Amino acid sequence: MRARELLTDFPTVRLDSPVVDAARLLAEQDLPGLIVVDGEDSPVTILPGTQVLRLAVPGYCQDDPALARVVDEAHADAFLRELHGRTVRDALPRQPRELPVTDPEATVLELAALMARTHSPLVAVVDEHRRLMGAVTLQALLDRMLPV
Amino acid sequence: MRARELLTDFPTVRLDSPVVDAARLLAEQDLPGLIVVDGEDSPVTILPGTQVLRLAVPGYCQDDPALARVVDEAHADAFLRELHGRTVRDALPRQPRELPVTDPEATVLELAALMARTHSPLVAVVDEHRRLMGAVTLQALLDRMLPV
Repeated sequence: MRARELLTDFPTVRLDSPVVDAARLLAEQDLPGLIVVDGEDSPVTILPGTQVLRLAVPGYCQDDPALARVVDEAHADAFLRELHGRTVRDALPRQPRELPVTDPEATVLELAALMARTHSPLVAVVDEHRRLMGAVTLQALLDRMLPV
Repeated sequence: MRARELLTDFPTVRLDSPVVDAARLLAEQDLPGLIVVDGEDSPVTILPGTQVLRLAVPGYCQDDPALARVVDEAHADAFLRELHGRTVRDALPRQPRELPVTDPEATVLELAALMARTHSPLVAVVDEHRRLMGAVTLQALLDRMLPV
């Protein structure tokens, strides 16, 4: 079995996409993160879902989450407003997460090795022009590999 | 809004559970990982899905995933058999991943701060005896917090 048989469509964002759109995609679908593509639809990195929160949560709360409890609840419920006007670029970690990339002919063992090495539950699959075709998820891989 | 209103049931495994069971749970449900509990149902750590693969994929393939492509395909498809007889304990990373834990009264801002600080898309919620009640996922948090 090859990567092309395990492909799923995977939502993407661009570096200059509003980070609120990224948050919405993460909320609607149960995704570990979003693939960030450049202007040529080439995968650049992954935006982990928790990075969106890092942008929205005040630093003093991240240092000591218990402090967050003393913030009054109405204010606490509204913290995502901080995301407005910010882009995906703003949300990326300083050390971008490695997004493994392969071609449609990769074997399951190769896909598994890529996920294991990079700790990424996702491998991007690209065509010969390095354009994103889709992704293979850990779930899809395990689902097809486990004996029934 | 408080953690108790955002709780989801979350599948758990024990340290001595067969790792094949963990792989099956990960394949059936779209989960970033599994909560590992001790004999008292107290959360211990999280088992990231990719760790299951680390146990199944031969080391030489993880060092150089391209090598995996030369393994014949029938053999490649069978690598998950390597998991038989292994337990969740065997699959845990040497440096266990931090699983943030809170109580049902945590506010959304506190939950978000915990996820942001630990890079975990999941917060375990425990009762007064530290028994697992469920988890709040990044998706549930974003879904309830984003303005419609």
